[in-house]
Amino acid sequence: MSFVTHMHLALEEARAAAWRGEVPVGAAVIGPDGRLLCSAGNRTRELCDPSAHAEMLAIRAACAALGTERLIGCDLYVTLEPCAACAGVIAAARIRRLYYGAADPKSGGVAQGARVFTHSQSHHAPEIYDGIGAEAAARLLRDFFAGLRGPR
Amino acid sequence: MSFVTHMHLALEEARAAAWRGEVPVGAAVIGPDGRLLCSAGNRTRELCDPSAHAEMLAIRAACAALGTERLIGCDLYVTLEPCAACAGVIAAARIRRLYYGAADPKSGGVAQGARVFTHSQSHHAPEIYDGIGAEAAARLLRDFFAGLRGPR
Repeated sequence: MSFVTHMHLALEEARAAAWRGEVPVGAAVIGPDGRLLCSAGNRTRELCDPSAHAEMLAIRAACAALGTERLIGCDLYVTLEPCAACAGVIAAARIRRLYYGAADPKSGGVAQGARVFTHSQSHHAPEIYDGIGAEAAARLLRDFFAGLRGPR
Repeated sequence: MSFVTHMHLALEEARAAAWRGEVPVGAAVIGPDGRLLCSAGNRTRELCDPSAHAEMLAIRAACAALGTERLIGCDLYVTLEPCAACAGVIAAARIRRLYYGAADPKSGGVAQGARVFTHSQSHHAPEIYDGIGAEAAARLLRDFFAGLRGPR
């Protein structure tokens, strides 16, 4: 599968999150063989868990499935730039490549703000590819928040 | 209870973590009434979860117990300076006061490295009190890693 197909899986998780009333962000962990290991959408409300971001849940599920704390050779696709918390866990899990969609000037921690991977205290930095499926990811978020504000 | 007593709870969790073969870090969430809500020790190995740091687990347990994503008015005690991932979740959970023990030049994300709370992308910054029980916390870590290296 190509990176477009992989991001499509993450976008489907984002759409499902919106349907559940969660901020629409989705993520997928792809194994070294290029096949889907785990995907997840944001579930912070449902789980009453401020750490239940899509990428955090996908990484935790992949680690549990493989019985390891480190996802060596695995790639992560996520529809929105990860926050500082998720970037920290991406580093801890040794994700090989991070592909993300929309930039997140408000809460992002990769290309702005904490820039987690740029410090020596981050013991790993993935290769980063941004802007993949960005327009679709941003549109989902815009539509979701417009819906919350109600019809004009 | 005083902050010394609260940090004692976190230190006991750190000792229990060492006993389980985990890096000895412990944390406790104290409710607005000054009573213990949840405490936890590091369980990254046991759970095969790179996010299973003491403070992350304590916050998640406290949120689940209260049925909320935000621990308004709650304080967190942790024996070691939080990493970037945990600092991000501390901000998301709106922890009121963060008390921590030993500084962590290697992996810390509060007073060094990502300095998560100093950026506008962090939507909350707790009051921070460092060095509480630092010597006991640091000794636990030193003894643990000395034990891993074996007798000289």
